[in-house]
Amino acid sequence: MEEQTPLDAAQQPTATGDMDPEAFRRYGHKAVDWIADYLSNAAQYPVLSQLAPGDIRHVLPAKPPEEPESMQQILADFDKQLMPGITHWNAPGFMAYFSNTGSGPGILGEMLTAALNTNAMLWRTSPAATELEQITLDWLRQLLGLPHPMFGVINDTASTGILYALAAAREAIPKLYIRQKGIGGRSDVPRLRLYCSQEAHSAADKAAIVLGVGQEGLRKIGTDNQFRMDVTELERTIEEDLAAGWLPFAVVATVGTTSTTSIDPVPQIADICERHHLWLHVDAAYGGMAAIAPEMRGIMEGCERADSLIVNPHKWLFTPMDCSVLYTRKPEVMKAAFSLIPEFLRTNESLGDETPNLMDYGNALGRRFRSLKLWMILRYFGHEGLAARIREHCRLAQLLSGWLDASPNFERMTPTQFSLVCLRAHPQGMDDEEQLNALNERLMNRINATGRFLLSHTKLHRRFTIRVAIGNLRTSEKDIRDLWTELQEDLVKEI
Amino acid sequence: MEEQTPLDAAQQPTATGDMDPEAFRRYGHKAVDWIADYLSNAAQYPVLSQLAPGDIRHVLPAKPPEEPESMQQILADFDKQLMPGITHWNAPGFMAYFSNTGSGPGILGEMLTAALNTNAMLWRTSPAATELEQITLDWLRQLLGLPHPMFGVINDTASTGILYALAAAREAIPKLYIRQKGIGGRSDVPRLRLYCSQEAHSAADKAAIVLGVGQEGLRKIGTDNQFRMDVTELERTIEEDLAAGWLPFAVVATVGTTSTTSIDPVPQIADICERHHLWLHVDAAYGGMAAIAPEMRGIMEGCERADSLIVNPHKWLFTPMDCSVLYTRKPEVMKAAFSLIPEFLRTNESLGDETPNLMDYGNALGRRFRSLKLWMILRYFGHEGLAARIREHCRLAQLLSGWLDASPNFERMTPTQFSLVCLRAHPQGMDDEEQLNALNERLMNRINATGRFLLSHTKLHRRFTIRVAIGNLRTSEKDIRDLWTELQEDLVKEI
Ligand SMILES: Cc1ncc(COP(=O)(O)O)c(C=O)c1O
Ligand SMILES: Cc1ncc(COP(=O)(O)O)c(C=O)c1O
Repeated sequence: MEEQTPLDAAQQPTATGDMDPEAFRRYGHKAVDWIADYLSNAAQYPVLSQLAPGDIRHVLPAKPPEEPESMQQILADFDKQLMPGITHWNAPGFMAYFSNTGSGPGILGEMLTAALNTNAMLWRTSPAATELEQITLDWLRQLLGLPHPMFGVINDTASTGILYALAAAREAIPKLYIRQKGIGGRSDVPRLRLYCSQEAHSAADKAAIVLGVGQEGLRKIGTDNQFRMDVTELERTIEEDLAAGWLPFAVVATVGTTSTTSIDPVPQIADICERHHLWLHVDAAYGGMAAIAPEMRGIMEGCERADSLIVNPHKWLFTPMDCSVLYTRKPEVMKAAFSLIPEFLRTNESLGDETPNLMDYGNALGRRFRSLKLWMILRYFGHEGLAARIREHCRLAQLLSGWLDASPNFERMTPTQFSLVCLRAHPQGMDDEEQLNALNERLMNRINATGRFLLSHTKLHRRFTIRVAIGNLRTSEKDIRDLWTELQEDLVKEI
Repeated sequence: MEEQTPLDAAQQPTATGDMDPEAFRRYGHKAVDWIADYLSNAAQYPVLSQLAPGDIRHVLPAKPPEEPESMQQILADFDKQLMPGITHWNAPGFMAYFSNTGSGPGILGEMLTAALNTNAMLWRTSPAATELEQITLDWLRQLLGLPHPMFGVINDTASTGILYALAAAREAIPKLYIRQKGIGGRSDVPRLRLYCSQEAHSAADKAAIVLGVGQEGLRKIGTDNQFRMDVTELERTIEEDLAAGWLPFAVVATVGTTSTTSIDPVPQIADICERHHLWLHVDAAYGGMAAIAPEMRGIMEGCERADSLIVNPHKWLFTPMDCSVLYTRKPEVMKAAFSLIPEFLRTNESLGDETPNLMDYGNALGRRFRSLKLWMILRYFGHEGLAARIREHCRLAQLLSGWLDASPNFERMTPTQFSLVCLRAHPQGMDDEEQLNALNERLMNRINATGRFLLSHTKLHRRFTIRVAIGNLRTSEKDIRDLWTELQEDLVKEI
């Protein structure tokens, strides 16, 4: 973004008003070219930024600019000063955490969203934003094979969504009027408890904290040898808690846990929830998307009985951050937990039951037009195209799994059910667990230092486990082959 | 976005992979041209969408597409099917709620953010995103004349920020270990109370609900004739509550309330908070930005004593949704309330005190690279340019105020301190309040129906009051003159 032209002199804002639209056009075209080049060359950057803490901070001026600067200069500095500090989530070699994609259609959607800058808080503040959110989420519901009706709403993150879902669960407790009276300092409110497995995402802990239930109000249930919630322990724990005077109110089950993508036994958990009148929330933030491939729908068994469920298009559905979908079969409870309409937000349309004001289903008031990018993605890829990509990622994960299983020096740590592979190096004859942990940590760091790949880790029964999270559209079979070569070569260097 | 070319046939995704970068380039250029035209012509759309509930829903297919569709077609449908359902927050005539701007530099920032699709949850997941957030928010702190140090973090909305701030306030209560033990069912935790004025934003109510404090845990203090919190009543109420066994823990003061932009007496409120050891949160979501003009810094008097404070660049700082800044003098308390690091998010860099992992300061895990657009805006406009625009909006508000004051048929309902004007028609001789309310509601609806302007309303001492919120960069003096003409002409038609 370097070339300087006469237009630059004219592109400065007048003292009032926005950037001139023609200047926007010019820099917009430059930005698009930059992005297209970036998307072509994303593999050429080190995936993990090589900078040290403070490197960016020390390069940038400590004081804000007094006078306007040229967009030319700003874009040049973006390239020169900031790009070295980017960790490239959008690169083919990014296989850490859960890999995701800022896809082409998604980026186009974000461009239009930013330009319209509309707010989907009330229906009238952009009817298209509210109605497209409903339509798009109903499409996604159908793609996932979930039952009708399910009310859907988009939040920034799954962490936000689980907080809202559990706020509704708390509100659903009969006769306590928690929204009105709160839970503190009341002799008629016992301590509340919710349940998840030891493998559930820390978003459940954070929700428990925020809701005032506290970390002690969240009980973590043990898992079986495949990291699935132990339902016998769940039921026993609930009964113990009841006997001890606690008030159980919700269970969080996970379809596709973060460490290993294990799937909790949702049907049995749903039975327990029914017996004990507990709200069932399913966290399928990553794994749920697999159900887009019809042959994988089995992973969602029991989810039709969930009171609320989350899937994240910004994880495995190629949608730029942020876009997390919260479905619920009980929108009236969500609304009862949150709806609050001050005078300045009252409107005089009669909307009817089918047309919600989406601010009523959560805490955030301002709401970006996030459904636009999702709509563009669902249309651009189509059901077939989405399913083909999900399948391809699963195929790549199986390929790597096969190589691992055939290798004398590596071991696979969990079943490969989705597109995540959990592995460790385990050279023949080396059986000391501490030694293996140290080896695998060094191995991961060595691979990450190459800049070609970024992997993350977890600990499974205290064993340092390397996670290879496949899920970016740019990751190809060649990348997986190269990773496998790299793993083997680096292992030789580390032992 | 209509023209069809041979490239369209080739732009379909292969069954794996993303949209081809060259196809992205082509549609990206189209989208930029569309946006530049839109920004030039934003005044030509009806500001308030003219559709009825369900109009969009009924036009769009009820089922998701099975096969991929062309981006050509998707963009054409966006134009044809969705645009009529947009309420144009980015149009010069948008003066409802708090008007805002998706500015040129902000849109460019969003484009790059979407393309990088990086996640600022941990420092290492994009060092530039974390460090730019720190630098940019420190620049903004300086622009606002706030003291050093203030720790800043960007959230999607002010509603989210106030929830986090009050979670920290709750955690700051000594010896209760609320994060760990929660607040429910404990005999050692009295009912908690927080305070705001009757004019505070409903975000405070929602935070009280979510935190488990409940709506009864939020006491709304009366206001004086200029809608400012009555500090005598505040102190008396706190003392009453203490005597009655409540545990007061926080006060929310507002600089620039939503209905009238009144300014609570923050210095006196800070005194009270100090005396009673309460957390002081200042909601300056809209009004705080005025302090960018040095001569207006007085509005922030006392804010240097706040424990936490929010300003929203996505309101009056020309930043596309979403971008809300939470400052705190007590980052260690925010962190104590929220930090939770599961194994899969542990990293081995030694970051040092100056380099945070920003996910530790709130509930949301995934975090968009929101500082990029803000950095581009601060640089592109510069301090002078930003201040000039804030001043211009205030000047336009004064201009309209002057005309109102000189008119026999209109009345100004509140002092004009920022860029919001509160008014009503009050024709000579018409003094029945119900009649005036009905008249003003009709008048507002008539103006909104023209499509040229969008105004919103509030009720002040039961009086229907029209709000004219100036704050979009595209709004010019001519727009304000036209609005004034429209108000007068429409009044004649309504009486
Ligand atoms: C004073 C004030 N605080 C908070 C908010 C909530 O803003 P957000 O949509 O960012 O949550 C508003 C919205 O208008 C406001 O005016
Ligand atoms: C299973 C699961 N749930 C929830 C989350 C939280 O996601 P978000 O960043 O959208 O809050 C994650 C993140 O990796 C996850 O893996």
